[in-house]
Order: sequence, then structure tokens, then C-alpha cells
Amino acid sequence: MSGGTAAGFAHRMRVYYQHTDAAGVVYHSNYLAFMEAARTERLRQHQIDLGALEQSDGVVFVVRQAQVHFRRPARLDDLIEISAEPSRVGRAHMLFAQVIRRDNELLVEASVELACVNPRSWRPVGVPDHVRHALMNE
Amino acid sequence: MSGGTAAGFAHRMRVYYQHTDAAGVVYHSNYLAFMEAARTERLRQHQIDLGALEQSDGVVFVVRQAQVHFRRPARLDDLIEISAEPSRVGRAHMLFAQVIRRDNELLVEASVELACVNPRSWRPVGVPDHVRHALMNE
Amino acid sequence: MSGGTAAGFAHRMRVYYQHTDAAGVVYHSNYLAFMEAARTERLRQHQIDLGALEQSDGVVFVVRQAQVHFRRPARLDDLIEISAEPSRVGRAHMLFAQVIRRDNELLVEASVELACVNPRSWRPVGVPDHVRHALMNE
Amino acid sequence: MSGGTAAGFAHRMRVYYQHTDAAGVVYHSNYLAFMEAARTERLRQHQIDLGALEQSDGVVFVVRQAQVHFRRPARLDDLIEISAEPSRVGRAHMLFAQVIRRDNELLVEASVELACVNPRSWRPVGVPDHVRHALMNE
Repeated sequence: MSGGTAAGFAHRMRVYYQHTDAAGVVYHSNYLAFMEAARTERLRQHQIDLGALEQSDGVVFVVRQAQVHFRRPARLDDLIEISAEPSRVGRAHMLFAQVIRRDNELLVEASVELACVNPRSWRPVGVPDHVRHALMNE
Repeated sequence: MSGGTAAGFAHRMRVYYQHTDAAGVVYHSNYLAFMEAARTERLRQHQIDLGALEQSDGVVFVVRQAQVHFRRPARLDDLIEISAEPSRVGRAHMLFAQVIRRDNELLVEASVELACVNPRSWRPVGVPDHVRHALMNE
Repeated sequence: MSGGTAAGFAHRMRVYYQHTDAAGVVYHSNYLAFMEAARTERLRQHQIDLGALEQSDGVVFVVRQAQVHFRRPARLDDLIEISAEPSRVGRAHMLFAQVIRRDNELLVEASVELACVNPRSWRPVGVPDHVRHALMNE
Repeated sequence: MSGGTAAGFAHRMRVYYQHTDAAGVVYHSNYLAFMEAARTERLRQHQIDLGALEQSDGVVFVVRQAQVHFRRPARLDDLIEISAEPSRVGRAHMLFAQVIRRDNELLVEASVELACVNPRSWRPVGVPDHVRHALMNE
């Protein structure tokens, strides 16, 4: 489902009817959900479980900003790969560079910024040290 | 968006690309989401706010069972109407009869059972009295 | 991602934020999408590609009826398994028995009927022979 | 559901469980779907029906690029308003400035570029004249 290769981590998945729309291609907002899956699996490789962080560290990561270029459409039955490279870890945010490919064809490129917030106040809080270390020392 | 007519309550909405799939029709699981919207608006007519019930009464309504007949497909740009008639209110559950129409054409028929549960234990609890009274005395 | 075991085929997937709702569990209609994924992977094991059937055989399979019992909720980060057993292949429809489990715990049980239709007229047409044979001779 | 005001067009909708996630807020990719609904209703005000354009003009509008700032979360039962202002109409693309508000509070800001493409080749084609005129002469 997900794995590291020479070219780095990629989350693999297949496109089903549920992802497509009446134009015959993947509905654009679904690529953002695919990228969430890839980030989650990327962090799981470092034993970081996004759902558990709320319990263990009292923080939630939320998408603060996204820049997405939809270059070519994915279609029904396509097998696609989604990368999720942490490109910067700030005091209270993380930046991911993400690419979606079908074979070696570039479909979508994105830059996604996650903010680390308190789940009640929704105010920014520092990225937990163990998350920072895991992402910076890889 | 929603309103009562001689034929009773119906939630109206339009079909957008986001609801369709590559077969050119509404993806089947979306009809269940449409029915949730209709039930929510139906209860709002009785000043029952599903999200607030967790705070005010310590209960959550969850879908326990659904029987759905997909008779004809809705398509892009269709204007559809979704009914939501409470057909039974038990000790810890409610049953809704729901129909989706385009003009007078029947598209989907469903019977949806909601259980009233404790949001922590997920165990059944009694339907709050004010909800029961609102639905039974209309 | 999917595989056969002693207990038969199951499609495995992880629950991400995108699948959950504010009650902290998987939103109920998503289980129907999970079941579509499982049916698709089940048919792929027989070299049947649902998307390609429209081109090759001029037919589309659409969900005609679903009976779903939501017994226990799946939650964020759960790893779940979805089965998809063809229980009957009629002239113009197929019936699937589907179960969703987390470890050995039963979460959702469903019976899903697919109709084989002409993609233009949406009228029932016969299940292609190669599909019927694949499912009946396994 | 949608209407023009002194402050311009806004598409109004309510947040249901189906839009939320386990963090208790609207799942981020859903805002892109909300923005599609607003663009569609915006164009409908000019008698432009996106689904019909494929039949009438042989073109489809697809999201080519999106820049989205998620400033504050929308929550269950919130009533939100989504604007969709065409800020530029190029030869083969349109740019929309979009804002999502709850009362007067800014939740999400986005710039969304749509490309006008041939539905078969997915190659850029000119924006139909009647679409261009409708959007430029308002």
C-alpha cells in the first residue's frame, strides 16, 4: 500500500468510481484527500500516529494552506502514487511537498502547510519534539 | 432549501460534479449523505439540532441500519427533493422513511434506523423526551 | 492492500480523517464506498475490470439495492478488512454479501445488489458471460 | 440557497456531519467542493449550465490550479456563505476569487483557476463566447 523506493516514499492507491466525477476523471478535491492519506502513512513510518497525537500530546495538525496544480487527470482504475516530503518544520507548522504520479507521469503537484493547534482553542502550539526530531533526522 | 408543502417536508438540493461519478450519475453512497441532510433539516423544523444534542443531552444519533432501493439515477444539474418522515420512535431508536424525487419521479426509497447512543460508550440510551415529543405530536 | 486468506478475500484499508465525522467515527455512507473498493478488487482478482466493461462489453454495473447493518463504528487509524462474496449471479444482476471487520470484530454487514445496465438507456442487460463464468467457477 | 446581496453573490449552505471529521471541524477538502457549488450557482445566474456546456459547446471546465488559505474552521450546524467572483477570463481559462464566511467571519480564502478543455483530448480550447460575455458584461 505504501513503501519506500529509491525515489523515496510513495503511497499507492487505485482510483475507484467513488473518486471520479461525470467528466470521467478524479474529482479535484479528492486529490487533497489522497494527499492526506500519503502524509499519514509517511508519518506512520516514523511511528507518528496523527490520531493518537491528540491524546498523547494534546495537539492536532490541520491544513492551513494548500497550493495545488492539477496537471493531468487520473481516471477510473488508474494506479497512482502520492509522495509526501516534509520540506520544512517550523515552530508551529510543517510544510509538505507532494506529488501524484501515474507510472512516471506527473498528475498533481502541491505544497501543503499544516499548523499544529490546540484541539479546543484552535490556537497554534509548538510541534511536539518527537515529531520534529523524527522528520528532521531522517 | 427545505420547506413544507402539501405533500410534506422535502429537502431540495442540486446535483453538482462532486456528487457524480464516471458513470455519469450520482455515486450511490451520496444518496445516504443527501438523506442525512434531509433528516437534519427535518429535525431543525422542530428546533432539534443534532450537533447540539451531544452537549445538551449527552446523546448522539447514529445510523444503525439502512435499506435502500436505488430505482433511477440522478444526474448532473438535477434538482432533487429528499423527504424524511419519522415513522417510529422507539425507546432508543428512531425510524425514518425517506424518498428522493426529481419532479414527481421516484429515484430512491429508503428506510433508515437511527440509534440513540452515549457518545463515549456508544451504548444505546433513551431518546430524549423533547425529541420524542416533537416527532410524535406533529 | 487486498489478498486472499484462509477465510477468503478481504480488502484492507486504513481509516483516515477524511473518512471520519464529528462524532469521532467513520461517517456511515463511507462504508458503502469501502464496499465498492472491495468489490472492485474482488473482481480484479478474476481479471474483471469494472471500468473497462463499459468499453469492452457495453455494460455498467450499478448498485440497485443495499441492506446495511452498522453494528460497531470504525475509528481514526483503524485497519479494517472488507469482504465481497458474490452470493448470486442472476440474468442481469449480481448479489454480494459483504462484511467489514477490525481484527475479528464485526463492524458492518451488508447485502448489495448490482444491476447490469446499458450505460445510455440505463435499462437492464445480461451479465456478460465471462463475468458470470469467472464468479461461478471459482 | 444562493442569492445576490449588496455585497454580491453568495451560495449559502449548512454544515452537516457528512462534511466534518474527527477533529470536529469541516474536513479541509470539502471546502473545495463547497466552492464548486458556489461557482456553479454563480454561473447559473447567467444561464450558464456547466453540465450542459459539454453537449452544447463541446467543452468542460476543469480545475487547473487552486490556492487555498484555511483561516478558521467551520463546524457542525454552521451556516456558511461561499462567494465566487470571476476575476479574469482568459482565452482558455477563468480565474475565480472565492471566500467562505460564517456571518462576517472569514473562514477560507481561495483563488481557483479553471481551464476550458475538450472533454476527449483534455486539451485547452477557447472559452465559449457566450460564457465570456456573460461574465464580463455583468
